[in-house]
Amino acid sequence: MTPRFDTILITGAAGRLGTQLRRGLAPLARKLRLSDVVEISDLQPNEEAILCDLADEPAILQATKGVDAIVHFGGIAMERGWDQILNGNIRGSYHIYEGARKNGVKRVIYASSVHAIGYHDLETQIDANAPHRPDGLYGLSKCFVEDLGRLYWDKFGIETAALRIFSSFPEPQDRRMLWSYLSFDDCIRLVTAALTAPRVGFTVSFGMSDNSVKTVDNRLAAHLGYQAKDNSEPFRAGVEARTDTPDPKAAAVRHLGGWFVDLGHPDEEAAK
Amino acid sequence: MTPRFDTILITGAAGRLGTQLRRGLAPLARKLRLSDVVEISDLQPNEEAILCDLADEPAILQATKGVDAIVHFGGIAMERGWDQILNGNIRGSYHIYEGARKNGVKRVIYASSVHAIGYHDLETQIDANAPHRPDGLYGLSKCFVEDLGRLYWDKFGIETAALRIFSSFPEPQDRRMLWSYLSFDDCIRLVTAALTAPRVGFTVSFGMSDNSVKTVDNRLAAHLGYQAKDNSEPFRAGVEARTDTPDPKAAAVRHLGGWFVDLGHPDEEAAK
Amino acid sequence: MTPRFDTILITGAAGRLGTQLRRGLAPLARKLRLSDVVEISDLQPNEEAILCDLADEPAILQATKGVDAIVHFGGIAMERGWDQILNGNIRGSYHIYEGARKNGVKRVIYASSVHAIGYHDLETQIDANAPHRPDGLYGLSKCFVEDLGRLYWDKFGIETAALRIFSSFPEPQDRRMLWSYLSFDDCIRLVTAALTAPRVGFTVSFGMSDNSVKTVDNRLAAHLGYQAKDNSEPFRAGVEARTDTPDPKAAAVRHLGGWFVDLGHPDEEAAK
Amino acid sequence: MTPRFDTILITGAAGRLGTQLRRGLAPLARKLRLSDVVEISDLQPNEEAILCDLADEPAILQATKGVDAIVHFGGIAMERGWDQILNGNIRGSYHIYEGARKNGVKRVIYASSVHAIGYHDLETQIDANAPHRPDGLYGLSKCFVEDLGRLYWDKFGIETAALRIFSSFPEPQDRRMLWSYLSFDDCIRLVTAALTAPRVGFTVSFGMSDNSVKTVDNRLAAHLGYQAKDNSEPFRAGVEARTDTPDPKAAAVRHLGGWFVDLGHPDEEAAK
Amino acid sequence: MTPRFDTILITGAAGRLGTQLRRGLAPLARKLRLSDVVEISDLQPNEEAILCDLADEPAILQATKGVDAIVHFGGIAMERGWDQILNGNIRGSYHIYEGARKNGVKRVIYASSVHAIGYHDLETQIDANAPHRPDGLYGLSKCFVEDLGRLYWDKFGIETAALRIFSSFPEPQDRRMLWSYLSFDDCIRLVTAALTAPRVGFTVSFGMSDNSVKTVDNRLAAHLGYQAKDNSEPFRAGVEARTDTPDPKAAAVRHLGGWFVDLGHPDEEAAK
Amino acid sequence: MTPRFDTILITGAAGRLGTQLRRGLAPLARKLRLSDVVEISDLQPNEEAILCDLADEPAILQATKGVDAIVHFGGIAMERGWDQILNGNIRGSYHIYEGARKNGVKRVIYASSVHAIGYHDLETQIDANAPHRPDGLYGLSKCFVEDLGRLYWDKFGIETAALRIFSSFPEPQDRRMLWSYLSFDDCIRLVTAALTAPRVGFTVSFGMSDNSVKTVDNRLAAHLGYQAKDNSEPFRAGVEARTDTPDPKAAAVRHLGGWFVDLGHPDEEAAK
Repeated sequence: MTPRFDTILITGAAGRLGTQLRRGLAPLARKLRLSDVVEISDLQPNEEAILCDLADEPAILQATKGVDAIVHFGGIAMERGWDQILNGNIRGSYHIYEGARKNGVKRVIYASSVHAIGYHDLETQIDANAPHRPDGLYGLSKCFVEDLGRLYWDKFGIETAALRIFSSFPEPQDRRMLWSYLSFDDCIRLVTAALTAPRVGFTVSFGMSDNSVKTVDNRLAAHLGYQAKDNSEPFRAGVEARTDTPDPKAAAVRHLGGWFVDLGHPDEEAAK
Repeated sequence: MTPRFDTILITGAAGRLGTQLRRGLAPLARKLRLSDVVEISDLQPNEEAILCDLADEPAILQATKGVDAIVHFGGIAMERGWDQILNGNIRGSYHIYEGARKNGVKRVIYASSVHAIGYHDLETQIDANAPHRPDGLYGLSKCFVEDLGRLYWDKFGIETAALRIFSSFPEPQDRRMLWSYLSFDDCIRLVTAALTAPRVGFTVSFGMSDNSVKTVDNRLAAHLGYQAKDNSEPFRAGVEARTDTPDPKAAAVRHLGGWFVDLGHPDEEAAK
Repeated sequence: MTPRFDTILITGAAGRLGTQLRRGLAPLARKLRLSDVVEISDLQPNEEAILCDLADEPAILQATKGVDAIVHFGGIAMERGWDQILNGNIRGSYHIYEGARKNGVKRVIYASSVHAIGYHDLETQIDANAPHRPDGLYGLSKCFVEDLGRLYWDKFGIETAALRIFSSFPEPQDRRMLWSYLSFDDCIRLVTAALTAPRVGFTVSFGMSDNSVKTVDNRLAAHLGYQAKDNSEPFRAGVEARTDTPDPKAAAVRHLGGWFVDLGHPDEEAAK
Repeated sequence: MTPRFDTILITGAAGRLGTQLRRGLAPLARKLRLSDVVEISDLQPNEEAILCDLADEPAILQATKGVDAIVHFGGIAMERGWDQILNGNIRGSYHIYEGARKNGVKRVIYASSVHAIGYHDLETQIDANAPHRPDGLYGLSKCFVEDLGRLYWDKFGIETAALRIFSSFPEPQDRRMLWSYLSFDDCIRLVTAALTAPRVGFTVSFGMSDNSVKTVDNRLAAHLGYQAKDNSEPFRAGVEARTDTPDPKAAAVRHLGGWFVDLGHPDEEAAK
Repeated sequence: MTPRFDTILITGAAGRLGTQLRRGLAPLARKLRLSDVVEISDLQPNEEAILCDLADEPAILQATKGVDAIVHFGGIAMERGWDQILNGNIRGSYHIYEGARKNGVKRVIYASSVHAIGYHDLETQIDANAPHRPDGLYGLSKCFVEDLGRLYWDKFGIETAALRIFSSFPEPQDRRMLWSYLSFDDCIRLVTAALTAPRVGFTVSFGMSDNSVKTVDNRLAAHLGYQAKDNSEPFRAGVEARTDTPDPKAAAVRHLGGWFVDLGHPDEEAAK
Repeated sequence: MTPRFDTILITGAAGRLGTQLRRGLAPLARKLRLSDVVEISDLQPNEEAILCDLADEPAILQATKGVDAIVHFGGIAMERGWDQILNGNIRGSYHIYEGARKNGVKRVIYASSVHAIGYHDLETQIDANAPHRPDGLYGLSKCFVEDLGRLYWDKFGIETAALRIFSSFPEPQDRRMLWSYLSFDDCIRLVTAALTAPRVGFTVSFGMSDNSVKTVDNRLAAHLGYQAKDNSEPFRAGVEARTDTPDPKAAAVRHLGGWFVDLGHPDEEAAK
């Protein structure tokens, strides 16, 4: 069967999730174009690679040419100083959307993050319409790109699914990940759903597996058609055995953002 | 075991869904009374048929005599000119409710439609309390009957479950039906739930199978106890193979009502 | 100064409120076209009269020709039998909207009624998004026309302001009217605001003066710019002196619709 | 593996649910301390028993010493006269919370009840933020203890999960229990989830199995991680065979509280 | 003109607000019955006094005999130890409602308090449906009586207006009172409105003057018809001159309850 | 009387609103520090001026030293190309907040804009919790700074009042400004309220005068204590005489952002 897309661009393709998406999205497109600041290893026949920096506007304009959809997982993936965040995430994502606009790309799947709403409490059970509450410069940049996506939909008709990834790792590493865990396979399911949903407009979805403890209400993204199939239960005993019971009153336990809320300003963290 | 009802009246019994309901509701009642404007074929021992027009008030008064519940699936089932809608759906349904009132029928299950709320957007994820937004004269008549049912509950104590049927066909016929599909068996499950729920009052429920892509929030009808068991996934590959990818910005893709929102006034459509 | 409109059609112009609107809307239009089933007395130079029945589709098509806006206050104004309601309000209003569509009229101001939501409780403090809960056939027809207006906006781009008139009389006549009172001058202010607001789309507004006791939340119509200037306080002492203290548990006191909720079916009321 | 808790206190341990919890919570703690006003039979090696009355403040201060968590299922479990409710539930629960505060207990799992919100309607589909609407003195005391738990969280940092038990019996006994049923195993799952959830703060959860008919919206407690595994379907045929079809208009069918709403004041019920 | 009520009972009539209400409510009733634990001075011809304790059930049963409405402002008016709160507010108010039930009193106006919701934040702008969050034992007793009023309305048809008094003093005494101030005259207006509103059912209203800074949303009580006429501006300069600028991050500034949230348990406060 | 603040920094002090604020805020502080990229004319004795660019981090760090509050009205005030917006508003505002953090400034009053939510519809009547919907790069930068303010409150305890200025001009210049008008005096009142409110945390307020037509719901900012005293009515006749009646279906009339929504990308607008 002909794949749905001719070419999909994956940014951050050398990263932890980018690597998974290369595998997972292969059936959806004739060709995957992969971009990253580091070299992509092990290139497959259905792949082409572009070595470029998101902060390099002309390069991004070039990279987004001729693609049907962009899976934008590139940029800085943790709390970092302002200049890195500004260049990698704010300026970089602006270049991606400008590339999409100038090259006629119709849909962007964006790796937003729980850290865009990290200061909300677990027991509030927020939905996707809750106001932004970033927990650091990283989260702030995620808020920015969500708003950017919203603008490019409202004004230029480019669809965005902003997927607020919680914790996507091979397995849960701490107690918090027992509820924030997004398995790699579920991550692929979520991106696939967002790419193939009949109508996205501008949609925010929380990205988690079907874990028992649920800390947000994802009903406003139900039209993406994402159906998680994994959960963290198989890892529970192991995690609990090697970690302490959390203090429910600790800020990092109370808030969705976890230990990010305990971080000071990255300049000062770096100076420590 | 004694069936729960003595006699259930099914209007529109010769129609696509009426035919299914004859089969599906048989276990619930000692007798099914079937009404339609066309002759019912293949009458079963547990069935009795009445040939009558919903616009004929005395006939409907007669047809509703001695029944325990009415499954009102009759009337015009698509966009049609005003006179047909007025007679078949507005006047016709008024006759049904008057029959219920005068004959002491306690519960009506009404085939409302997605077209009562067809102008809402998918990504709004409306619930049953969202205001009416009909997408044509047909949908307008569905709104009318919902309000009629609400009135007869508030004033006369007759319960109504208004089931907003999305797309109930043997199988999904286009991309939209991948999310709007209601299998025949799930349709029977939904009507059965509405007939047997302990308390209905006036309840609006969306009628869909358990499809992956969900475009509305049905939690306000959870007391009906409807549990969908089917979904559109087995038909996905086939539908996608023979239909084009929809344009997410098209009005018919954006709105719940689908291509109904593209229709002009039925008088002018008819003149085309 | 040139008035804002060339010609405004007022239906029901011989009625209680229609008569007030003739006076009040005069400054807004070069000409007021007045329609009613009874003859309009005392015609002014800025006025022209049409004697016609809303149920007469060709006549209404004619009456709506060449007008800039329609102030639709005609039809049956109280609880009546089904045939009267059907012809005067349901069919009649359909004719008005068809006239608007065919003749290119851009805005309709419709006299809806508290009886479209008469079964809601006072202390719920509903807003304009609350579901319809008509308290009789009259209210049911008001719900129908609201949905009709919504449809003609969504599909044909004709704006409607549906003004749910509470109790517009020379002065409050009973205890309930101390909160439901809409003075004639405030009624004119409300219609004027709805005619001149920059953007109406489909808007529902509750129509009351600035009475002390407030039973609904009108914030969703704030863009109409209606500013009530009257209230019922000057009439309080008189009303209280000549009426009994209401029983708070009576259905007619509990519900917005007042004594309409106590009415039985109009056929049976008529038979009393 | 070391159990999560050293000592858990279960109040009302000789009661219907207390007995189940002895079995179900055993794996969670090295020791279960059991309190009741009647003697606990069949004491296990992992258990210790305290015979005491909740109204006896010093005894409760003693019973709560050295425990890690309190599962407070004691007190009066049905509608009773004021003095019993006051002593057993209001004063008794105050003593429990004072014991927790003075002895440094960090989490309380409280058996609240559907009767704290018994006057809400089924079709409203309330969530945990809906205002209290107790259906008797028993329910009123449950409201009180919920507010007490809220206060001790806000002011003293003691967490409470208030579990509004619907109907926890060996099997459903009447039609209402087909939706209100909480199996004993699900009850244990719910208490276990509440004890082990990473963050509780003050959380209200409805306590039901996964029955088909659902009458409340429990999403605000999703962070407890409770996953019901049972439902009432296996008992449906039996219950329906031996009970009458309920009247949907009966107060006891309309309201969440069931037949409690039909009870008069307990003093007068007792005098009957 | 005949006053609206024959006899109104005011509890706590010797207190700060009770004294004001004696003056303010005089025009509403032929006779004011005044109760308090201390002697009422300066008895007027339209007044009769009863010296009794709210904890004395038979006395309260007697005091509520033959009255048309109860203005229940008695009981403990500040944070106190459990026994005082239990007897004065919990048991005492139960006696009042039992008196109302047994003696057929139809409406109770209850002096609830901001301290029933003292742990909510100012900037949340809660309305009357927000969950209880008491800030001490005093506030907890206010929550209890609100729920008691709700029960007696739902079950016995006795109406309650629960007025959450913020700060009713001769004038604002600190910075917080610039927003929480309720002038004595506005307090009288509020109680008068609650006594004379056509329908109260169970209604919660926040009690404040029309101060510039508003910290709660009172729209759900708009049917009481309370119109504040005073505000704190005349006192602003004085208060600001003699008090320090508050620290916005202080718990007592953040929360509606003010310095009550800083209080520890009353037993320990008393021991200081 | 001693003014409330020692030193307030006003950025953009040479601008249209900055100039008004110099006059209006003078009574609040011993000294106003004024910053802008252009020279401030007519310096008063209570003023000191700093010529600097917001993009110059060290200069801003210096400018924010020793101030008690910052009234941040500087930066680009209209739709401009990305580089200008990035430097003036995104980087510039980050420097302001970093200055606040490093210099211990406790409160920031930020001139946000209607253009942060410009794609919402008038008739939706959004409140301050509605998601961002910027209508251009300018609005996008306003969203960014709101989120920045939110972060600096949640993480560093610096309060922000984000005032979404609608249209603050000497008088309304077009039909839209009849509802979006914020008089200069009301602008001063709003900033003053935000500076002096007892608790701000992170608060978003819409900035408009008390115009008749209201297009948003500002209740969530009621704790700022802003009381508009002006409105656009005195200018209505003039505006209406010299401008055409707007087309209600035009995008610029439908959306809060007005003609900003009609703008293309600034790069292309510039190229026109």
